[in-house]
Parts: sequence; structure tokens; C-alpha cells
Amino acid sequence: ELTHKLDSLHSADVAHILEALPVDERLFVWDLVKAERDGEILLEVSDAVRESLIESMDPDSLRAAAEQLDADELADLAPDLPQAVMEAVYQGLDQEEREQLRAAMSYPDDSVGALMDFEMVTVREDVTLEVVLRYLRRFEELPDHTDQLFVVDRDEHLRGVLPLDRLLINDPETVVGSIMLTDTLTLEPADEAETAAQAFERYDLVSAPVVDYHRKLVGRVTVATVVDFIREETENELLSQAGLKEGEDIFAPVWDSVKNRWAWLAVNLVTAFFASRVIGAFEGSIEKLVALAALMPIVAGIGGNSGNQTITMIVRGIAMGQVQDDALTRLIKKEMGVALVNGIVWGGLLGVLSWVLYGSGKLGAVMTAAMTLNLLLAALVGVLAPMIRNRLGQDPAVGSSVIITAVTDSGGFFIFLGLATIFLM
Amino acid sequence: ELTHKLDSLHSADVAHILEALPVDERLFVWDLVKAERDGEILLEVSDAVRESLIESMDPDSLRAAAEQLDADELADLAPDLPQAVMEAVYQGLDQEEREQLRAAMSYPDDSVGALMDFEMVTVREDVTLEVVLRYLRRFEELPDHTDQLFVVDRDEHLRGVLPLDRLLINDPETVVGSIMLTDTLTLEPADEAETAAQAFERYDLVSAPVVDYHRKLVGRVTVATVVDFIREETENELLSQAGLKEGEDIFAPVWDSVKNRWAWLAVNLVTAFFASRVIGAFEGSIEKLVALAALMPIVAGIGGNSGNQTITMIVRGIAMGQVQDDALTRLIKKEMGVALVNGIVWGGLLGVLSWVLYGSGKLGAVMTAAMTLNLLLAALVGVLAPMIRNRLGQDPAVGSSVIITAVTDSGGFFIFLGLATIFLM
Ligand SMILES: [Mg+2]
Ligand SMILES: [Mg+2]
Ligand SMILES: [Mg+2]
Ligand SMILES: [Mg+2]
Ligand SMILES: [Mg+2]
Ligand SMILES: [Mg+2]
Ligand SMILES: [Mg+2]
Ligand SMILES: [Mg+2]
Ligand SMILES: [Mg+2]
Ligand SMILES: [Mg+2]
Ligand SMILES: [Mg+2]
Ligand SMILES: [Mg+2]
Ligand SMILES: [Mg+2]
Repeated sequence: ELTHKLDSLHSADVAHILEALPVDERLFVWDLVKAERDGEILLEVSDAVRESLIESMDPDSLRAAAEQLDADELADLAPDLPQAVMEAVYQGLDQEEREQLRAAMSYPDDSVGALMDFEMVTVREDVTLEVVLRYLRRFEELPDHTDQLFVVDRDEHLRGVLPLDRLLINDPETVVGSIMLTDTLTLEPADEAETAAQAFERYDLVSAPVVDYHRKLVGRVTVATVVDFIREETENELLSQAGLKEGEDIFAPVWDSVKNRWAWLAVNLVTAFFASRVIGAFEGSIEKLVALAALMPIVAGIGGNSGNQTITMIVRGIAMGQVQDDALTRLIKKEMGVALVNGIVWGGLLGVLSWVLYGSGKLGAVMTAAMTLNLLLAALVGVLAPMIRNRLGQDPAVGSSVIITAVTDSGGFFIFLGLATIFLM
Repeated sequence: ELTHKLDSLHSADVAHILEALPVDERLFVWDLVKAERDGEILLEVSDAVRESLIESMDPDSLRAAAEQLDADELADLAPDLPQAVMEAVYQGLDQEEREQLRAAMSYPDDSVGALMDFEMVTVREDVTLEVVLRYLRRFEELPDHTDQLFVVDRDEHLRGVLPLDRLLINDPETVVGSIMLTDTLTLEPADEAETAAQAFERYDLVSAPVVDYHRKLVGRVTVATVVDFIREETENELLSQAGLKEGEDIFAPVWDSVKNRWAWLAVNLVTAFFASRVIGAFEGSIEKLVALAALMPIVAGIGGNSGNQTITMIVRGIAMGQVQDDALTRLIKKEMGVALVNGIVWGGLLGVLSWVLYGSGKLGAVMTAAMTLNLLLAALVGVLAPMIRNRLGQDPAVGSSVIITAVTDSGGFFIFLGLATIFLM
């Protein structure tokens, strides 16, 4: 009866169940799924789970699964399929599908070309709506997310679009050309996927045509693909902030997880070791005043927290296009203002606490000064690091938390122990 | 000519420009925007920017702006409008709009009721498609995102939906009831918005009907609203991980930013202070072997990084519904396996480094042992904390990074200094 239940579920729901199962149970359920649904389910599962499913399948079932897919879907699956399987599938495609597959595979993952499909319904501009309505009645079904028809000339050049609502509200005698829209958004395959996603969000689109540089219609992007892209993108961002290379299967073998995470730990180890050497340089002072050892992690830690707030703000602002280059000094002034307030308030509080705890007003003053200076340093680097990376054409988000932690740890230890050595020794 | 340029832009683009401008320039541009567009632009800008714009407007312009909006849009704006303005606008609404406004405002921000609008096109099931087509031709335009018509009975109960593509491909003589879909997804106003968003993603929806508990049609949700919800939600998640309460206007006055960020710093200060007291308890050992002061932040820091990886994985897994309660022991075993490997590799490496640097094999061994134990502790808490919060019905993401940092800092210092005191003193 489990087989029965699975048959009644939407592919996306089956995919979700597979993702939530540990590997052995997952493969058991996978065997119960009807072979003709294998293809669409492989498309729905996460990359990590897809790998585990494909590994369990023999070449013949894989080929059968792949053959059920459209060219654009096949392109999504291709990197995970054994080469022999892909070649066999390719042989079975007709000329048009081969070209579509090549087109879809020739664009990088984060481009419009990777998001597009080829299910466009096209009409000519010189026909009446009556003709269009009759034409559509010959379809068995319309492609998902058909909210507009693409108006093309004899050579497939895009002349405009005919939204279904215009088709429906206007008189059947009307000619397509007289009511089609000509100034709507078009994408090109090489455009960044993120640009397309922003356009879909901003203009509330359901589908958009993709044209080449001769304005020839080559595909379309739908909001369903865009939603998946947005979710995957933000998911990756959340994971990569914690140093997880990719969406790890939470039931992955220990060894796969170690590989996914080790690079980040290695980088952090280097910065932590460097910070440790900074402390090492002041061992003489710590030996004389051991309270320094207890207080120094506070200075470093609060600097890190505050710096992370600044860098997160700036990175977000840049990503959403809210930060122009000329805002640099304004932002530095503002963030350093915030840092100064926090330094005086929290640094002051901790200065008093240290004074009470260790009975030394001078130690308290050093604590307050060090915290304030480290917060100012964190604010400065928190603004500068992402702005500079951005100006150099690099992704401002990458490594931002490593940078800020490295600076506030090493910097915090240096500032606090340095001030202590000067004023307390 | 700036006015001219602004008039030619989409409201969402104007909103984006306003968000990217510092406050004074923002208000200058805002004055140039045609008054009749004020309403829709206020809807598009971020909460923080909206506040700054509304503050600059007099009650009359605000009322004029609000009067251009649909009931659902008005509900979104209402919390930011002065009460007197809202009352004046309310007086101007007809009976149906008042009810819609009350309905839209009565549901919490994160419910389907807050996402829905009231622009449904409804038809009866006993008419032919011909009749439907003629009915639609009387519209000036169809509501955005009309991908299906809602089939209702005389009392507005939802009987099914008629996708536009079924309307278009079938013979005009066909009766609506014979081709409408009856088993499609329906939402209720009290459903969580996140559930609706997942349904839209999974089933690739463009719109979905909202019904009350008598299955009376009360509204609909569109993919455009869902996309905005998803983006806002993940945006908030990214910001709150860094302890930013909400999407702060990056050009906000210093004081507003301080208020937005202080709570997080206060919490971190408490945990940092606690960790400092742990160190204070071992001051005697540090005095005798000052190398401990230099090495202890490495143990704490790497534990924190590794624990953050674990907790991020688990929180993500729970959010995506991939983690069942019975997976607990399996996940603990796996994460502790990863921790053990990392402890032996990185802890071993640092043990050797410490041995070389400080000439003490015993110190190196303590370093390796402490790192391994702290990584195991981080893995344990990284799995347990979000799983327990989840089982108690709390959001597993909230405070996860504070918890893990508190545990790995205090725990790391305690383990390392404790082992050192036992074996090296
Ligand atoms: Mg199968
Ligand atoms: Mg992928
Ligand atoms: Mg693709
Ligand atoms: Mg498709
Ligand atoms: Mg008309
Ligand atoms: Mg939108
Ligand atoms: Mg830290
Ligand atoms: Mg204005
Ligand atoms: Mg809001
Ligand atoms: Mg609303
Ligand atoms: Mg609306
Ligand atoms: Mg037909
Ligand atoms: Mg989807």
C-alpha cells in the first residue's frame, strides 16, 4: 500500500519525502516509485540527494528516466549523469531537441540560459484573435505558466507579446498586432539569473521571453523556475555564511560532511593561530597581570559581533543595489558613530565591572578604551571590506565573516594588550 | 526633467531609487513624484524607508495616497499611517471594502490572511465556456495573475477552479462544471504564510483560492505576493543571524541603528562576561603557564566555527521539513563522528604546533584533547539545541548562534584550562 500512496502523491511531495529519509530507507522508497516518474522526481530533489539516488540506479533505468525529460530539464540533470548515459540519451533526441540541449548546457549555472525552457506558444501579428482562439483549441494542453503568447515573425524574431487577458477581453475580430505589447521586458541567455529574478520580483512577472542578439526568440523563463532559483540562492547564502560549501544532505556519510566543511575550518584555524601569536607577543604583560587573559576575549568577541552587524548591513545593501560608491564616507561616518556610542555605553559598563572585580581603575579605563577602539576598527573594516571587494568586481559577501572575525580578534587582542602594556606595566 | 524621468519609471523602480538615496535627497525626489503614485510607491519601499517618507507627508496627502489603494494594500500600509488618516480613509470606503479591510487586518503578518487580495474573477459551473468568454469580454482588464477563474455557487462557496488554459483549449459548447478542477489546493486565512509559500514553490502555482471554514471564497493569494514574502523572510533571517532586528535603512540616523542592534550586543556581552569568569577561575594556572592564555582562544574559536556549521545544517533541515524527531540519535552520532575526525586532524595539527612552539609535548597533548572535546561538545549542542527548541514548539533558528558561541567559548575555556590544570600543574 506504500506503493499506492506514493503513486497518488505529487512528484515534489515524493521528492520531499526522499529528502527527509536516511540513506537506506530513502533507497528502499526510491525502488517503490514507478519508473516513469523517476525523471521528474530526480529534478525535484536537492543536489546531494539526487547524487545518492543516481548512484543506486543502473545505466538502463537512468537512461529511461532521462528520456522522459524536456531538453531544459535534461540539461539540469546532465552534470550528475554518467557520460555513457548522456550519450545514449543524446542519440535518441531529434535535431531541435539536440540544439535546445546544447543551448541550455552552454550557459553557466547562474545565467538566464540555465533557467530558460523551450515551451513557448507563438502566434503571428497579422491574424485576428479569433484565429488565435481556434489555434489554441487544437492544443491538448498549454505549457505551464502560459500567461502570454509570443508574437513572432516568419524568422522567429520577437515582435511583441499577447497576454492571455488581452486575448480574452478583446473582440475576436481584433488583430493581434493592434493589441500586443511591444515594450515588455526581454531577457538574453547570457544575462545573470539574479538580474532576471529581480525583474520578476519587481514587475511581478509570470513568464518572460528570452531572445538572442538578433531578437530571435530562443526560450522563456517562468516564475516557477525563478522561485526555485531565489530559494536555492538564499539557501546557499545562509549555508555559506556558516562555511558549508553546499546544501549538504543532512544524512550524508561522515566523510562527505568532513570534506564539505574542512576548508572553512582550515581558514579559521589560520586566523585563530595568528590571533594566538598576537597574544604570545604580550606574554610578559599577561604574566604580570593575569586579569588581562580573562578580559581580552570580551574585547575581541564584542568587536566581532558588532563588526558582523555592520558587514551584514553593508553586504545586504550592496546586494539590493542600495549602496552607491559615493556613499562610502557617509556610511563610514555613520557606522563609526554607532560604534562610538556602543563603545562608550558597553565599554564603559565593562570598564566599571573590571574596576570593581579587579580593584584597578586604570585597568577599567584600558578596558573601556580598548573596547571603543576595537568597535571603531570593526566598523571601519565592516564598511571598507565589502565596499572594496565590490569595487574590485568581487562578491562582497564571500568571506565577510572570516575577515571581520580575523580583524576583531587579532586587532582586539593587540589593542587591549598593547594599551595595557603601555599604561599598566 | 528629473520629474519627467520619474514619471516614465515603474513604481517599483522609483521605490528602489528612493531606497538607495540618503534621507535628504530621498525626500527631495519624493516631492517630485506625482501625488497619484504615492500610494503604490509607499507599498513597494522597505518598511524603514516607508516610515521616513510617511513622516515627511501631511495628513491630506497621506489620505489621498491611501485612498488610491485596494483594501488588501491599505491593510499593509495601515500600521504605518496616523490613526486620524486611517479613520478618514475608512469613512470613504463602501460596505464591501470595509469588510475586506477588516478581514485583511485581522490576520497576523505571517498568515495567509495577510497575503491575500480580493481580486477574484468568479463564474458559475452550469454555464458554457462561450458564456464565460463573453462575460470576460466585458472586463476592461483582468486582475494581475489571473491564471484561473474561481467557480462558485450562489452563496460564494468554492466549487472548483477553471484554469485559463482549459478555457482556451476546450470547445466553447463545453459546460464549466465538466472541465473545472475540484481537487486543487485551497488555503485558509489562518494558515501560516510559510505553508502557502511552500505550496506555491512545490506545485508551481500562480494563484490559489482562500476559503473560510464553510468553503466560502474570501480571497486569493498570488505568486507575486509569495515571492515578496519569501524574499522578505530570507532577508530577515540573514539579518537576524547577525543580530539585526529588522531591515534597517542603511542611511538611518546613528541613534536608530543603535536601538536596532543593542539587544544582541547586550546578550553577547553577558555570554562573553560569563566566559571571562570561567577564565578567571583558572588564573592561577595561567600565571604559572602563560602559554595557556595564547592557546585558549584557538580552542574556543574553532569549536564555535564547527558548532555553527552543525547548528546551521540542523536548523535548515528542520525548516525544510527534512528532520523528523526520531532522527535525533542518528544525527548526533553523525555530527559527533564529523567532530571526532576534525578533532583528531586539526586538534592533532595544533597539538604538534604547540609542542614545537612551547617545547612541551604534554601541552600539545592537552591542546589536542581539548580541541577534540570542545568539537564534540559543539556537535552535541549543535544538534540538541535546535531539536529541543523545535520539539517545544519554538523557532529553532532564534538565537542559535548565540547559544553555540556561549557553549563553545565557556566550554572551550573550561575544558582546556581544566585539562591543563590537571595534567600540567
Ligand atoms: Mg524507482
Ligand atoms: Mg543545482
Ligand atoms: Mg535549466
Ligand atoms: Mg518544463
Ligand atoms: Mg473589452
Ligand atoms: Mg513584486
Ligand atoms: Mg569568537
Ligand atoms: Mg510626492
Ligand atoms: Mg512589512
Ligand atoms: Mg496584505
Ligand atoms: Mg492588488
Ligand atoms: Mg482540445
Ligand atoms: Mg517549484
